Amino acid sequence: MISKDEIDEALRRYDKERITIATLCSHSALQIFLGAKQEGFRTLGICKPESKKVYDSFPLASPDEYLVVDSFEEILEDEFQMELRKRNAVVIPHGSFVEYVGPKNLETGFFVPMFGNRKVLEWERDRKKEMKWLQKAGLTLPQVFEDLAEIDRLCLVKFYGAKGGRGFFLVGSGEEFKEKIAKAGRKLLNGESDDYFIQEYVLGLRYYPHYFYSPTFRRTELFGVDRRDECNIDGLYRIGATREEIQKFGSYVVTGNLPVVVRESLLNKLIDMGNKVVAASQDLFPPGIVGPFCLETICRDDLEFVTFEISARIVAGTNLYPLGSQYSCYLFEEPMSMGRRIVREIKLASEKERLEDIIY
Amino acid sequence: MISKDEIDEALRRYDKERITIATLCSHSALQIFLGAKQEGFRTLGICKPESKKVYDSFPLASPDEYLVVDSFEEILEDEFQMELRKRNAVVIPHGSFVEYVGPKNLETGFFVPMFGNRKVLEWERDRKKEMKWLQKAGLTLPQVFEDLAEIDRLCLVKFYGAKGGRGFFLVGSGEEFKEKIAKAGRKLLNGESDDYFIQEYVLGLRYYPHYFYSPTFRRTELFGVDRRDECNIDGLYRIGATREEIQKFGSYVVTGNLPVVVRESLLNKLIDMGNKVVAASQDLFPPGIVGPFCLETICRDDLEFVTFEISARIVAGTNLYPLGSQYSCYLFEEPMSMGRRIVREIKLASEKERLEDIIY
Amino acid sequence: MISKDEIDEALRRYDKERITIATLCSHSALQIFLGAKQEGFRTLGICKPESKKVYDSFPLASPDEYLVVDSFEEILEDEFQMELRKRNAVVIPHGSFVEYVGPKNLETGFFVPMFGNRKVLEWERDRKKEMKWLQKAGLTLPQVFEDLAEIDRLCLVKFYGAKGGRGFFLVGSGEEFKEKIAKAGRKLLNGESDDYFIQEYVLGLRYYPHYFYSPTFRRTELFGVDRRDECNIDGLYRIGATREEIQKFGSYVVTGNLPVVVRESLLNKLIDMGNKVVAASQDLFPPGIVGPFCLETICRDDLEFVTFEISARIVAGTNLYPLGSQYSCYLFEEPMSMGRRIVREIKLASEKERLEDIIY
Repeated sequence: MISKDEIDEALRRYDKERITIATLCSHSALQIFLGAKQEGFRTLGICKPESKKVYDSFPLASPDEYLVVDSFEEILEDEFQMELRKRNAVVIPHGSFVEYVGPKNLETGFFVPMFGNRKVLEWERDRKKEMKWLQKAGLTLPQVFEDLAEIDRLCLVKFYGAKGGRGFFLVGSGEEFKEKIAKAGRKLLNGESDDYFIQEYVLGLRYYPHYFYSPTFRRTELFGVDRRDECNIDGLYRIGATREEIQKFGSYVVTGNLPVVVRESLLNKLIDMGNKVVAASQDLFPPGIVGPFCLETICRDDLEFVTFEISARIVAGTNLYPLGSQYSCYLFEEPMSMGRRIVREIKLASEKERLEDIIY
Repeated sequence: MISKDEIDEALRRYDKERITIATLCSHSALQIFLGAKQEGFRTLGICKPESKKVYDSFPLASPDEYLVVDSFEEILEDEFQMELRKRNAVVIPHGSFVEYVGPKNLETGFFVPMFGNRKVLEWERDRKKEMKWLQKAGLTLPQVFEDLAEIDRLCLVKFYGAKGGRGFFLVGSGEEFKEKIAKAGRKLLNGESDDYFIQEYVLGLRYYPHYFYSPTFRRTELFGVDRRDECNIDGLYRIGATREEIQKFGSYVVTGNLPVVVRESLLNKLIDMGNKVVAASQDLFPPGIVGPFCLETICRDDLEFVTFEISARIVAGTNLYPLGSQYSCYLFEEPMSMGRRIVREIKLASEKERLEDIIY
Repeated sequence: MISKDEIDEALRRYDKERITIATLCSHSALQIFLGAKQEGFRTLGICKPESKKVYDSFPLASPDEYLVVDSFEEILEDEFQMELRKRNAVVIPHGSFVEYVGPKNLETGFFVPMFGNRKVLEWERDRKKEMKWLQKAGLTLPQVFEDLAEIDRLCLVKFYGAKGGRGFFLVGSGEEFKEKIAKAGRKLLNGESDDYFIQEYVLGLRYYPHYFYSPTFRRTELFGVDRRDECNIDGLYRIGATREEIQKFGSYVVTGNLPVVVRESLLNKLIDMGNKVVAASQDLFPPGIVGPFCLETICRDDLEFVTFEISARIVAGTNLYPLGSQYSCYLFEEPMSMGRRIVREIKLASEKERLEDIIY
């Protein structure tokens, strides 16, 4: 792990009047760049040649400068990182940045100051740690079946290596699981869940609340809610697909997001959940999570939220709200996206000379 | 019923320069508080201890003052009501307020000035009166089957006492109805529809247009449209649920709302429907409905709207539009939520010294 | 075809300081009128008597003046057109205007200056030309089956004359096609596709990206994305409809629109597709498309967009964003609807004395 001292040392040498907000041109970079400009910062986009035109085509969200790479591996090269430091860059890590550079590489080989607690990367990528975190927060989690014989309801089988939601399938019993795994040509690991895990399929509706924990204000903000648009599972109803067809053709690739609000009386639960996730993170990896996170939940018809995952950074669902959401308007008078919120935190911390509280 | 004279008398004693907008901390209170602040009013939140933190966590929608109750019954106590009057409170009744305090209690035992015509409570809670109102307005209603033998299509069976959309089921014939009601362990009332009613299941898409009738402008405003997110019925397609599974597992609990707009050529119909509902209310319970209401409709593929219910107050679907909707922007230049719209009406009526036209 | 010279001559006689933005009161007229007012233009609504009240009920989108017609045929009368010219009218053609007046009539008998390239009407209404255009642009199109014997997957059968999405059906083989067409009482045309066409049914999610090609800025702007709400197909899942029931009861009538955003990494593809459609149009019918268009796509789970249609004008999906969308905010600082965008282009071209580049 890159030490906090090393990052603090780099930060001390930064020209605080000329901080540059940098991120990879993908995922949620448009709102980050727009937000950074709104807050008065310089912006830098790291991108492959083919992505540049996307960001050029949106003038208000085009970064002031690009660093073009042919391969994401270049990002880890010393020279590249020194270029970022030379520009007083604070990097905003989003899902694509973490995925393309690699969470382990970011932990051990990326010495540019990043927004947020670097330790969170480990707690997010390691599924056991993630579950420990959510359990410690006291959230309701879907039941996980370790023993095939115990499967007594509809379950979703997920493979750890599966990218973008592919390779999920539904089973109703241990027998069905064995049949399907055999058909799929996968090795059955005698019930060891190294390769896959079997999770209760929770009936209900999906809500993805976005949060922001602000060390400056010492508060957890509920910032918006979305629902992921999963391809092609969310379109199969139009042909009246049967369970068998859903199993055969169904996939869970996120291709977009839909806006949604929750019943106001449910906000109490969502806010509680957010506060508890923050508190648990402060215990598990002090000083805990900093900035944006998202809980991936299903609300059951008994009004209980079951949380099946946490994204410990800005999520793409916030792209729905580049000028603010149905909840951010109760927090800020200005149009406040999650991207802008991150940069606002950097600005506030910088003004208080407390950048080291939010940058790791 | 609390007499209009009594309310008018209370209003006369109010300090019109210091009116406080009060509501229960739930349902749509965030937009009501934000709107009241935007319009320059003091705000007061009635809440249970556990809800306070929700409203505190959104600084721009936190009421200036709370009156905390341990039980909603306290709201009906004389002392509590006198506290509200002392603060020149105008209460905005929303769905949770009406439900928790009880519509009958509000009619007969709540003597604090409330926004809107108090008589509407009776026309909304009594299903027969509600239907009379909608019929008088000339709306297309779903066919209701009183005689089991006449059931000739897919029908939805609803129980009057059912809370939050539970206990609905689908039947295709009188025989199926008898079987299901027997299975559910409910008494069959020889076709008397005291306990349940059987309604044609209308194929189509659900649209919930929000309206505001302004006595000040003497106009009905179409303010926005939403679709309710019903848990778990709106998620069951993801497992390819059969009709039988939908019957067995399906529920209709509203957990959120989705934004939607209608084809512009359909606005003519929606506006007509709104105007007719207002006109019918003026005949049935003069001076008729005041302020917000919502029609719960299904648009069939012949472009006819079938109305199955009316909510005669602010609905939670307006929570989607705290800074205005796709229709309110054609009515007001400012970001105008339904909550703010209510308070604006109070402001306009107050300026014209006509508060008694909108407060009952 | 009305000659460009004739339009240019009319334009020359226009008082450029008093241009009136005119359109038919339907489809997307509210945002066009609001946008025109925001940009400082006079507005004129062409309408049937029954539509006037819709536009009157939205004061900020009410046109300054109406020309009321009893039948849309009046629009083609010389006298009517001279009235429009007398007011220096630039007509914004939208879907309902084109449909009601008739694309051929607009091409040959409507001599009032219209926004956009008039030649596009022909390329849009003739399905073979439309396909040629999309193919030339290099877009991925759904496979079309000319020979019944070749049908090897789920297909959608569409009839050319079908209005509003009715009369579509699904078939899995040539045999099934023959059975269904016989049942429907339609003549089978020995495989000639004059009456119907058979298209691969693409599994995935529907995205309808809105674009604007600006001759003034020489750029294609990605302006927003929506999903059409199709009645009743998008509601049938709530009763667990089987394929057979979907075939029997299902219809595809557009009754509304839902907002949606796409994964940011997919914007590259969408922007490419837009640029290629513009380039192909410039080759096929110079100077090519001017102003708004929309691609009707399905995103598959391999992240490929299959385009099944183009709308070469403002689409109703833009009604979701009367004050700007999740993408327009990266293009313009002001709240920018597609309606306003069109009028802004007229304003910019007028200032540069280049109206003839965008009006035909």
